[in-house]
Amino acid sequence: MAESETITAVATPQGKSALAVIRVSGPDAFEITACCLQEKILFDKTPTRYVRLYLAKNPISKRTIDQITAIKYCAPRSFTGEDTVEIICHGGPLIVKEILAALQQAGARSAVAGEFTRRALLNGKIDLMKAEAIRGLIESTSEVNLRCAQKLYRGGAALDLVQWREELIEQLVKIEAQIEFEEEDNIIAVKEDGKKKIEALMIQLKGDIEKTEKIRGIEYGLRVVIAGPVNAGKSTLFNILVGHNRTIVHKEPGTTRDIINEGLLIHGHDVELIDTAGIRDTEQEVEREGIERSRDAIKNAAIIIWMTAADERYSDKELQEVLSQRDKSILGVINKIDKSEGREKIFKFAKAGIETIAVSLKKKTNVNLLLSIIGKKIEEIYERVEMPHLLFNTRHEEIGRALFKEISTACDEWKRPEIAAYHLRNGISLLDEYFGKIHSDEVINRIFEGFCIGK
Amino acid sequence: MAESETITAVATPQGKSALAVIRVSGPDAFEITACCLQEKILFDKTPTRYVRLYLAKNPISKRTIDQITAIKYCAPRSFTGEDTVEIICHGGPLIVKEILAALQQAGARSAVAGEFTRRALLNGKIDLMKAEAIRGLIESTSEVNLRCAQKLYRGGAALDLVQWREELIEQLVKIEAQIEFEEEDNIIAVKEDGKKKIEALMIQLKGDIEKTEKIRGIEYGLRVVIAGPVNAGKSTLFNILVGHNRTIVHKEPGTTRDIINEGLLIHGHDVELIDTAGIRDTEQEVEREGIERSRDAIKNAAIIIWMTAADERYSDKELQEVLSQRDKSILGVINKIDKSEGREKIFKFAKAGIETIAVSLKKKTNVNLLLSIIGKKIEEIYERVEMPHLLFNTRHEEIGRALFKEISTACDEWKRPEIAAYHLRNGISLLDEYFGKIHSDEVINRIFEGFCIGK
Repeated sequence: MAESETITAVATPQGKSALAVIRVSGPDAFEITACCLQEKILFDKTPTRYVRLYLAKNPISKRTIDQITAIKYCAPRSFTGEDTVEIICHGGPLIVKEILAALQQAGARSAVAGEFTRRALLNGKIDLMKAEAIRGLIESTSEVNLRCAQKLYRGGAALDLVQWREELIEQLVKIEAQIEFEEEDNIIAVKEDGKKKIEALMIQLKGDIEKTEKIRGIEYGLRVVIAGPVNAGKSTLFNILVGHNRTIVHKEPGTTRDIINEGLLIHGHDVELIDTAGIRDTEQEVEREGIERSRDAIKNAAIIIWMTAADERYSDKELQEVLSQRDKSILGVINKIDKSEGREKIFKFAKAGIETIAVSLKKKTNVNLLLSIIGKKIEEIYERVEMPHLLFNTRHEEIGRALFKEISTACDEWKRPEIAAYHLRNGISLLDEYFGKIHSDEVINRIFEGFCIGK
Repeated sequence: MAESETITAVATPQGKSALAVIRVSGPDAFEITACCLQEKILFDKTPTRYVRLYLAKNPISKRTIDQITAIKYCAPRSFTGEDTVEIICHGGPLIVKEILAALQQAGARSAVAGEFTRRALLNGKIDLMKAEAIRGLIESTSEVNLRCAQKLYRGGAALDLVQWREELIEQLVKIEAQIEFEEEDNIIAVKEDGKKKIEALMIQLKGDIEKTEKIRGIEYGLRVVIAGPVNAGKSTLFNILVGHNRTIVHKEPGTTRDIINEGLLIHGHDVELIDTAGIRDTEQEVEREGIERSRDAIKNAAIIIWMTAADERYSDKELQEVLSQRDKSILGVINKIDKSEGREKIFKFAKAGIETIAVSLKKKTNVNLLLSIIGKKIEEIYERVEMPHLLFNTRHEEIGRALFKEISTACDEWKRPEIAAYHLRNGISLLDEYFGKIHSDEVINRIFEGFCIGK
């Protein structure tokens, strides 16, 4: 994989489409592309970053393949930092294949997955975090993951972590100085001051780890659970919501341990909608197990839609069940108001401070209002999601946890400077790894193995 | 669908990839795009067809979405003939979604399938044939279809057909003149001369219709049939070929009427490989039916690979069976030379003029040579495929057949000028339809309904 080679790959997905983009990068990118164009001289003369139409041909058979546009980017002002050509051709799979074959016959090699970004990294055009951010931008299937990737792409974490690294080095230097001049009073004061500074970092880091955990919890969508007594219309609502909201990332539908769930987009937000077994007192063992599972689902929910029928009598026990989940976002839905007004239930729920709406799913009364309230509740939660400042993916999380362990051990051992210094040094190494200063091939390979060809 | 609207769509396939291209076209394309960029003024100032980096943002939330490149094309020097922007962003599905949403919030409308090309047609940037060619470039899944689309894209047919139309008009004018000045001798001479000219067109058209039929016959791949006596190693060869050649257009595998077939690429060429039941004399009815089907498959084959075992004795009857298919490309394969030299068979086959190779599939003797001979035979046939001059798709074929009927009726009725004139006029109308001069909405809709979004 010498960088003296010129590489090529299609940068857009396989499939039939209007356009496809093919990239060529490396020292001979211009020459190789020129060999595959009818208008070689025009291409040579065209300034960089200027788009022109050409006819692509096979350099050996001379047969015309397609009318394309090509753009030259001169090193180092390109994505990879090398001379690069972007070819935009018609998006037919055979057209793409023929153009790639032509470029290869003219001397380019097929790029392996992630090779363009790897070259950008090795040429100093991007750092490791930007490479990860690009992967995140491409791979994100949920809004929170995308936000993380966007923040990382804009270099969100870099400045903070540079300061952290400096802080750790400063304290390390002081501790090492102290090892030599032990027992002096003012040194001890500095020592305690240093410990406080490290502890402040610990608190920040802990906050970030917690935020990351919360994001992991909703990265496949906020859990919205439809719960309530039997025969209240839960499945009807489930079907209405599924029907109204087309899914982009359509997770395999199916029943998870008797609980039906479906990935949807509601108001553009990823949601995992869960329908549960109706809750009631029962002697039947199978049903009891189903109810246990419903309770588990409720426990892990972000939003609970509690459906209850207007024509069933109010019970204090039911309200207690709902109120026991007060830490979640709860919406009370009194269904079947075509059958009964359900005044007592509405009154009791509202009085207990639960946002409540009376509907008839059957007669379609207030259904649109219900949908918009559910949408609003989801948006409220997404708006409250706090983005981490430093840790944007699982690699970062792992480093963050390890770093937390090192600096907290350093604090615990603050009175034994040799040991504290050892852990601070480990912490600094971890930050270097985060930045990719120590980029062992292994770390790089791990990041790039998930890339698609053409990136 | 007023053209005063500015439309937008992604022009690359759905999926995760390095890059995606989004198009914006219409009177407000520049302004709408500018609203979605952090560097609005820079974008306004940037000359057309010059590529620059920008940050795309949502015009309402102002949140940054992605770092993109954008290219402006001024009307009429764009694909659609309208002001157009091409945005190249990271190829994440959510990124694409967010950018499209931003453009829509800034005033663009989602394009319907084929709407960009339709606008190009209505703005006179391309004609109907070029629109069809673009569809062909995108949709082609076989080499011959792609060649047709490429030829059509380069305007291969247009000149010839313009001449045809002129020829038909010229003869029509003469015939109509003749209707008025009947019985003059020199007119009759002109008449016969005119008929000959039309007949010359008929011959050309017939040739083209025949070429098109041949292409239809191989558009899903050349039929390569493995046939021969029972127990000769046919299925072993089938599996070797399937294993060696990865399929791009993988047709549903399966057994077609007891005949196993599989779509493959051999040396980059589409091939439909067919394994047949062994041929032998039998009383068993079921087996006899299988053998009948094998014979049918052989009849429709382009290439026959006749496999026969070296350790089975030579029979004149077998050789006659092979020789009865002399119009096809035949390759004799004497298998199992590990068991017997099979000299007599090799000698008799070769003497009969059949290209023959002796192999042992079991011991892998000459297998690579066999594969390369098969590849060579396929290439020979593909090289001999004649491209039509005028008719490149089923719509053209239909018009071609109708045109042939009209002008041959005109020739038949040459002595009855009113009737001949009527059919010539029909022929001219058909040519106008071919060119899209008469583009009834129906014809246009038929062409565009198969387009993908973003084209």
